[in-house]
Amino acid sequence: MTEELNATPRRRRARRPRPYPAGGAPTAAAKSQPRRCFAPVPAVSADALEAIHQASLTILEEVGMDVLHDEARAILKAAGAEVEAGTDRVRFDRGLVEAQIGKAPERFTLHGRVTARNVEIGGNYLAYCAVASAPNCVDLEGGRRSGTRADFRNFIRLGQTLDAIHIWGGYPVEPADIHASIRHLDALFDLLTLSDKPVHAYSLGRERNLDAFELVRIARGIDAETLLREPSVFSVINTSSPLRLDLPMAEGVIQMARHGQPVVLTPFTLAGAMAPATIAGAVAQQNAEALAGLVLSQTVRAGAPFVYGGFTSNVDMKSGSPAFGTPEFMQSSLLGGQLARRYRLPYRGSNVNAANTVDAQAAYESVFSLWGAVMGGVNLLKHGAGWMEGGLHASFEKMVIDADLLDMVSAFLAPLVVNDDTLALDAVREVGPGGHFFGCEHTKARYRNAFFAPMISDWRNYESWEEAGSPTAYQKANQVYRSRLAEYEAPPIDPGIREALEAFVAGRKQAGGVPTDF
Amino acid sequence: MTEELNATPRRRRARRPRPYPAGGAPTAAAKSQPRRCFAPVPAVSADALEAIHQASLTILEEVGMDVLHDEARAILKAAGAEVEAGTDRVRFDRGLVEAQIGKAPERFTLHGRVTARNVEIGGNYLAYCAVASAPNCVDLEGGRRSGTRADFRNFIRLGQTLDAIHIWGGYPVEPADIHASIRHLDALFDLLTLSDKPVHAYSLGRERNLDAFELVRIARGIDAETLLREPSVFSVINTSSPLRLDLPMAEGVIQMARHGQPVVLTPFTLAGAMAPATIAGAVAQQNAEALAGLVLSQTVRAGAPFVYGGFTSNVDMKSGSPAFGTPEFMQSSLLGGQLARRYRLPYRGSNVNAANTVDAQAAYESVFSLWGAVMGGVNLLKHGAGWMEGGLHASFEKMVIDADLLDMVSAFLAPLVVNDDTLALDAVREVGPGGHFFGCEHTKARYRNAFFAPMISDWRNYESWEEAGSPTAYQKANQVYRSRLAEYEAPPIDPGIREALEAFVAGRKQAGGVPTDF
Repeated sequence: MTEELNATPRRRRARRPRPYPAGGAPTAAAKSQPRRCFAPVPAVSADALEAIHQASLTILEEVGMDVLHDEARAILKAAGAEVEAGTDRVRFDRGLVEAQIGKAPERFTLHGRVTARNVEIGGNYLAYCAVASAPNCVDLEGGRRSGTRADFRNFIRLGQTLDAIHIWGGYPVEPADIHASIRHLDALFDLLTLSDKPVHAYSLGRERNLDAFELVRIARGIDAETLLREPSVFSVINTSSPLRLDLPMAEGVIQMARHGQPVVLTPFTLAGAMAPATIAGAVAQQNAEALAGLVLSQTVRAGAPFVYGGFTSNVDMKSGSPAFGTPEFMQSSLLGGQLARRYRLPYRGSNVNAANTVDAQAAYESVFSLWGAVMGGVNLLKHGAGWMEGGLHASFEKMVIDADLLDMVSAFLAPLVVNDDTLALDAVREVGPGGHFFGCEHTKARYRNAFFAPMISDWRNYESWEEAGSPTAYQKANQVYRSRLAEYEAPPIDPGIREALEAFVAGRKQAGGVPTDF
Repeated sequence: MTEELNATPRRRRARRPRPYPAGGAPTAAAKSQPRRCFAPVPAVSADALEAIHQASLTILEEVGMDVLHDEARAILKAAGAEVEAGTDRVRFDRGLVEAQIGKAPERFTLHGRVTARNVEIGGNYLAYCAVASAPNCVDLEGGRRSGTRADFRNFIRLGQTLDAIHIWGGYPVEPADIHASIRHLDALFDLLTLSDKPVHAYSLGRERNLDAFELVRIARGIDAETLLREPSVFSVINTSSPLRLDLPMAEGVIQMARHGQPVVLTPFTLAGAMAPATIAGAVAQQNAEALAGLVLSQTVRAGAPFVYGGFTSNVDMKSGSPAFGTPEFMQSSLLGGQLARRYRLPYRGSNVNAANTVDAQAAYESVFSLWGAVMGGVNLLKHGAGWMEGGLHASFEKMVIDADLLDMVSAFLAPLVVNDDTLALDAVREVGPGGHFFGCEHTKARYRNAFFAPMISDWRNYESWEEAGSPTAYQKANQVYRSRLAEYEAPPIDPGIREALEAFVAGRKQAGGVPTDF
């Protein structure tokens, strides 16, 4: 927040001319990224943090991880890990783990297909992703339904118009009507043509990873050498908590690292279910799993970009249902950030809630999540806009509301400028006791941009609001979503690049896509 | 958050036996107060803070305040302020202001009529007040209506059952059907008998202040000497921004200080209306007005309890409507806290929103407000539960939801304990890779109290929720509010004290109450 820590005010930065890439132009000037200008808030003392770190090392040393991937186990064994014969169990010596800390970059640029969409991951930068991986979607008129390519494309169109969304963190909703053998081809094609923001690829086997690399390489108009140097597509790798790394996930770590693309390793440690029923214990386990992923990634390629993912929440002990945006989630968000900083890694958090509809619960759980993530030092915010129902549905209206919330967070983080102009002593002298500032020059000069102007918040007086039919934020968001979709224009793309993308997709389809057994 | 900064965990503290007061017993064990165990987040650098402080001193020195109260001007003149002859204008020398800083206590105890309801104001303690001063109220069945004593009493009953509410910060809704000449008598009688939590008195003339002192003195069963030493009723003093202290407010400062009761001086500096259209300027003016109040208070009685109130928000520049829970409100919350700490004063903030109904907007604006207040170091949170529509109505359902939010904040602030027990290495060893923690001993031992259990959040799966009629948080809160009212029992009170309160009210009514011209 201090004006000194960030010498260049946000608005001025946004006005700077940016290099114009060959691959196309952004539809709107990309907002400059928000930055956190105060120290993150620690969850525990330095001693307690060290105790958690040591507990994680003990878990890796004594219990170990099941790594369900032959090559991964071989790589780890070669690096010095102990692989239990005839099993998937890998145990990690403390020294082996410690030796891999500090090799991955503290910060890197994730490239979009146009330069203006590049985002910084790490340092004091924040980058916001859209909701990802929901099997269902909801809007006010259509209700809840399984995801289709039509809905998937509408989420991309809507998200492309929302400047608060910097990155596609996966498929906003699963386009389940596309066969799994070719889904990644069509879905990435849609993301790369209906939008120009950076993308994510699911690690579902080697071929899909390689297809994704080729698609983003073509979209960016770069060669393979450049791709190796420039992170252009990232993959979230979830461990199967407790302490298991499944085959496609291990494969993903290897492929992403080999190709210089970022891994966001995120254990899904629900305290009381897949992790101990205490935040310290659940985060110690999260940390062990993340460090195991770090060792694999850095062993494959030292310096490969790696993001520390924190996603520890708790279950409702009465029902076993996962809960999000809880006080425990906030605490684990602070604690995860503290650990990521200890390892000098960018930190991934989330904007999540467990509500079934876009009501007060959806909003307060979301803002509590944001509170924990932002104060914890989040760099990559997953599920930033549109997530509902613990991830089981994506909401078009919630995507709009969340974009507003994210813009509010960015405005909150903007440096508070203190100088003669903002201190406004002349205006106070001019108005004096008992007057008002509506008409003074200082106010008039700031009329348009003085304060954050929200999309959703309805600040009309009660009578005007009632005459307008007493609309809720949900209904207002529906209007915004509908009008955004109606006004959507696809971002420009070089026709040659578009054709090359089409040709690649067609060729891979002709070859049968990625074989499945269904 | 660090377990070390707060050696005694919250739960243990709550179990300690408390002295049992003669005046009655609490209906439920008062929850121990939440404490902030990390450093507050600064809004600006130390240099920028000093620039704001100096700007405030310049305002007081050059422009001054209009103080619409003869005795107050005389007091200030005697203290060295310059009073412009024939006007209300008072100008404050920088040295005069600086000399009054540091005299008021950094922390004090606000006494309830039972000891178990005492709350600490200042330090790293947080105390939550209910909504106050709304002219209207709303519930789901009854819609929006002017406040009556019946509604007023129901708010007290509801709030008495909600442990998150520590203090009555005024009338939750104005009991407008009680004549103004006797309203303070009936309203305080209701607050002191239907509840046992500490109370607020409106500064609406000397007689009402004195009546309030006598009522709390009787309710606590103490003598006047003890009352002078023990803060037992507080008053929010609003300046008429810009730079004016009205007659009843100046009178309130004098009376409260003289009787050793806390003033919460809160300028209502809406940036762009009653203050400059910049946060730095609006807060510099807020600060000038607060410091003027501090000078008056400390001149009347050095060491009188004084709380620094921050309430700077902004107007919607398109309509002039006040906005709350905005990014600017959050920034001013951090900045106000930073100033309060500079003056070593307890800090008052607010949980506010401008929504017309209990929807996502109401929730996100509220949690953003809480975020700013809590990270800014709030000690006394006004309007903690039930405020809606920029203060124009109090909502029964929102009071319940807010109580849940406040409990979530308290749980978030509870120290995160890191020790062998919470690190749970044995549980991780027992469960191992691929298992689950539902059945392990570590989880079973924590089954009941492992995690925060909300009143409102609905974590059922979508199908169960839909079968139950797709209730929103608003509807769920309505159920809780109805059942709480049905189950409400008045807290015990010594019959002699109750009779004395009744007799005092009856006597003052017989004498005509406080004369009004209507």
